[in-house]
Amino acid sequence: MKTIGEIGEHEAIRRLTAKLGTHPFLRTGAGDDCAVVAVPGTGIDQVFTTDPIIENIHFKSMEEPGRIGNKAGGRVLSDIAAMGAQPQWLLVNVVAPPEQDFQAVEEIYAGLNALCNRFGTTLIGGDLAQGPCLELHVFGTGTVPAGKALLRSGATCGDCIFVTGSLGNSIKGKHLDFVPRVEEGTFLRETGWVTAMMDISDGLATDLRHILKQSGVGAVLDAGTIPRAGTLNQALYDGEDFELLLTASAEHADALRLQWAERFNTELFRIGRITDRSDELVLEQENGLLEVLKQKAFEHFSEK
Amino acid sequence: MKTIGEIGEHEAIRRLTAKLGTHPFLRTGAGDDCAVVAVPGTGIDQVFTTDPIIENIHFKSMEEPGRIGNKAGGRVLSDIAAMGAQPQWLLVNVVAPPEQDFQAVEEIYAGLNALCNRFGTTLIGGDLAQGPCLELHVFGTGTVPAGKALLRSGATCGDCIFVTGSLGNSIKGKHLDFVPRVEEGTFLRETGWVTAMMDISDGLATDLRHILKQSGVGAVLDAGTIPRAGTLNQALYDGEDFELLLTASAEHADALRLQWAERFNTELFRIGRITDRSDELVLEQENGLLEVLKQKAFEHFSEK
Repeated sequence: MKTIGEIGEHEAIRRLTAKLGTHPFLRTGAGDDCAVVAVPGTGIDQVFTTDPIIENIHFKSMEEPGRIGNKAGGRVLSDIAAMGAQPQWLLVNVVAPPEQDFQAVEEIYAGLNALCNRFGTTLIGGDLAQGPCLELHVFGTGTVPAGKALLRSGATCGDCIFVTGSLGNSIKGKHLDFVPRVEEGTFLRETGWVTAMMDISDGLATDLRHILKQSGVGAVLDAGTIPRAGTLNQALYDGEDFELLLTASAEHADALRLQWAERFNTELFRIGRITDRSDELVLEQENGLLEVLKQKAFEHFSEK
Repeated sequence: MKTIGEIGEHEAIRRLTAKLGTHPFLRTGAGDDCAVVAVPGTGIDQVFTTDPIIENIHFKSMEEPGRIGNKAGGRVLSDIAAMGAQPQWLLVNVVAPPEQDFQAVEEIYAGLNALCNRFGTTLIGGDLAQGPCLELHVFGTGTVPAGKALLRSGATCGDCIFVTGSLGNSIKGKHLDFVPRVEEGTFLRETGWVTAMMDISDGLATDLRHILKQSGVGAVLDAGTIPRAGTLNQALYDGEDFELLLTASAEHADALRLQWAERFNTELFRIGRITDRSDELVLEQENGLLEVLKQKAFEHFSEK
């Protein structure tokens, strides 16, 4: 008998993911940011995701409730954006103890609704249940043209690697106030040049490994080009940036960055390239030295 | 400042429900068993629901994990069945402490998958998060012909009231092992005779009030005809029966019961009638005495 703490979050999720179902309409099951299913006769695929945030794990109880609502919904919209999809419907389960201040729950809803209004999505349902601490479980759906969802599995050798914004140090506030990259995700999909995409929730180094593993490739990150909100180590390993991480063919890299700059008046940061060395993640230091990065995932489920 | 415990679960949900969004495609928001949205161009509506079950609130930790999985998924399928819809996709968030036995989580998944296989639905995603106790949050979608979802708001004076099975005492095991009335819900919708439907999760008397309130009607329950798995009081007030509660025009009541018996080889129980006395729920005793039933909801969020 092994506990989840002994097995570790990532291995536990891997084993549970293997137990998910199959269906002829299911294009992509778990293992990507969203599940993708065909909606026959519409030319549209629907994407589904769900994300929990839990008091003292994902947020402190003294945080402003509106920001907690923003984070809970934003994580789901970020997953949908990472598929290049347009968010559609959200539902939320709130778990709280009886002594929970009700006004704070109303403010959490207000934070969620403000986010929904901003991104053209609608909170259509949910539930409230008694439990030992405050938790939000947000479920979301989105839509994307059939077969066009951007997966983690499409990167090929020679592609360039990009991120949409600064990384690291999100604990200072960004983890609560981030803006999910919804418009950016759709824009990137529509260029037709993006080969793989995901959002950064566990840190650049950890999340890039998902693309490497699922695409069967390796990568070299160019340390000097990674946009940082703190140290290089924070940029590589801090979680909850909620920027998009993507790959695109080198041939279109310049055009992609140009179109991005015209559209968003910011930079699309080119931070490295895809190699054929399967699963190998290399950091090229500013002095030219190469360092193979070891796996160093942020693991929840640390035993107390 | 008021706590959820002081406000009470039902009032808290009512206030939060008022904060949900609106959208031209949203046919029915929260307040029914599922939210219902139009899927333009398909002739289909999609229904959405989400349901949490929490250790020591909805189940004891020593229960067999497979039965916990069945309950978590069954509650969602029951909500979908209550719309007359066909279940489609499920996602599940599991919350657990680090010391949670992992094999039990795998067995919960097995219970969920067995349920999915039985009802032609597919578990396509989910997440795993660290928290203080074991919880399952299941999110489900279903499909129903456009405009045909059975709501709580359609009952009219003179309709007959029916339930699909015995009520009360589900604590003895049914609350874990119940079979959601999926085929029955679709059958009932397809007759075209059902005017309102919901599933019984909080007890017959409590749940019937939702139909009364949303339809602007009253009801008389005929005590002698209520199918019981225990006492009359248990049949009226115990929660988690997960039978369907429905109304249909008196004109078709006999035909409905006949067709039901032919299809399912069981009885569709006629237990009362809808009146024009808005919000008034009357119990007609077997000796003919009439008793007006007071509201007596099972409230979660009792202060410890």
